[in-house]
Parts: sequence; C-alpha cells; structure tokens
Amino acid sequence: MIPSPRSACPINRSLEMLGDQWSLLILRDIAVHDRRSFRGLLTGSEEHISGPVLSRRLSDLVAAGFLTKTGVARGQKGRYSLTELGLATIPVLVQLGHLGALIDPTTRGHAPDLGDDPDQLHQRLDALRRAHLDDAPSPPSNR
Amino acid sequence: MIPSPRSACPINRSLEMLGDQWSLLILRDIAVHDRRSFRGLLTGSEEHISGPVLSRRLSDLVAAGFLTKTGVARGQKGRYSLTELGLATIPVLVQLGHLGALIDPTTRGHAPDLGDDPDQLHQRLDALRRAHLDDAPSPPSNR
Repeated sequence: MIPSPRSACPINRSLEMLGDQWSLLILRDIAVHDRRSFRGLLTGSEEHISGPVLSRRLSDLVAAGFLTKTGVARGQKGRYSLTELGLATIPVLVQLGHLGALIDPTTRGHAPDLGDDPDQLHQRLDALRRAHLDDAPSPPSNR
Repeated sequence: MIPSPRSACPINRSLEMLGDQWSLLILRDIAVHDRRSFRGLLTGSEEHISGPVLSRRLSDLVAAGFLTKTGVARGQKGRYSLTELGLATIPVLVQLGHLGALIDPTTRGHAPDLGDDPDQLHQRLDALRRAHLDDAPSPPSNR
C-alpha cells in the first residue's frame, strides 16, 4: 500500500499505516464494540464518522492486512474480521486509552474494557482471536 | 486546543491530539535521539519532515502540554523538553514499534531503544524525566 516507506523505523511504519484520525477508532469499534458491518460501524460511531471516510479507511485496512472482509458476493452484507495483524493493534489502543485519560481526566470513566493488566489483555486477545479468525475465509490450500 | 472533543472516549482524545503522520515521530526524535532544537529536529529527521510542518506540530505539542519550550527570548535558541504528559506518550511509541516490526519485518533491527520490558521502560522514563523536567521553566510561584 505504501510503496516507499519514509524510513526504516518501525514506529514510522505503524504511523504510515495508522497515523490518522480514524483508522484506530475503526479498529477499536470492531474489537471493543463488535461492530462488524459497514452499517454498524457507521451508525454506531460515537465520533460520527462519515460514510465516505469509513469506506476508504475500511478498504485501506483490508488492503494493509489488518482486516478481512467476508460475504462480499452480490446481495450479501460484508462482515469485517480482525486478522492477527489487526489484533496486534490492540496493545496500541490500550496505551492510547491510558494516555487519553491523562490528557483529559473526564474521559477516564469511558475507557473501553481491553484488560488493564497483561494477563487480562492476553485473555481478551484470545477471545477476540476465536471470534474473528474463525470467521475469516480459509486459505484456498486448506479447502 | 480542541474545543469540543468528538466523543468521551480516551482513545479518541489521544488521536485528536496525536493522530497524524508527524506528532509522535517528533516526540520519538526528542525522547530517543535527544534532538531538542528546531534545527536538530529538522536536519536529523530520518523521515525528512518539512520546516513548516515541524514548526506547526511543535507549536501544537507545546500548546497541548506535551512539550515546553525554553530560551524563547530574542537571540536565544529554543530548546524543547518533554513534560510529564510528553513522557506518557512513550509507552504508545513502544507499542507502535512492536506493531511496526510485525507490519514490516525489515524494520525490526531499527527499533529505537525504549526498553523492552516494563522494568527497562521504567528506568528509561526516569532518566528522561531527569533530563527533561529539570530543564523546564519553574512555575512562577516557585521563584
């Protein structure tokens, strides 16, 4: 998706993919609020994301390997699932939540439940892994 | 700086402040590479940030409380220091580094040294706290 990274730094690589106002919020809504459809993500958005922005960001997240989309045949509703790479964004969301509560203490009671300690986070990731990776299309070689 | 947050979520609050391509890279360069001046940040930037973008982002980071700027009198070179809030962005940088190494394994050897385990990170933050907070201007009431 990004033909020529700006540098060899992994922090930069993450920001080239996710350094915008919306991508990580979409991943939050899929992971925390289990919003798996375009409509669910659009109408449930606390931040009132617009349809065109949501559409473009979802396409980018699929192209970059953070999400898969199933049910894309005519007449079926698309359903988004986190990939392993998508699941790997969750520790970033956890830290952004901690930081946001320092930036603005009024947000403190609104932190998504992602597990406060490493054990809880591990369990949460396992549950999400079962809920999302089983939904993903099997690789063709397994069929 | 942001009069009306889009939502009460702390993750959103962090992204409203830092959800762009450059702010977290500037904080990385100040924290990891000890680039404390405008010129150092501009000429040292691996990602080749432009002067106008750097200037705007530094002003925003100071206004939002992530950085302080000292030596702003005429003829003095400005020097940027992390605040406690700026230091609190470092765990986010650590997680973005882990994620970037998964997104693109070729970046793995280029991860900034921010401490791999919680103990190391704690020590790193203490060292940065001594180097940066002592440089900050004292509050007027202490003078």
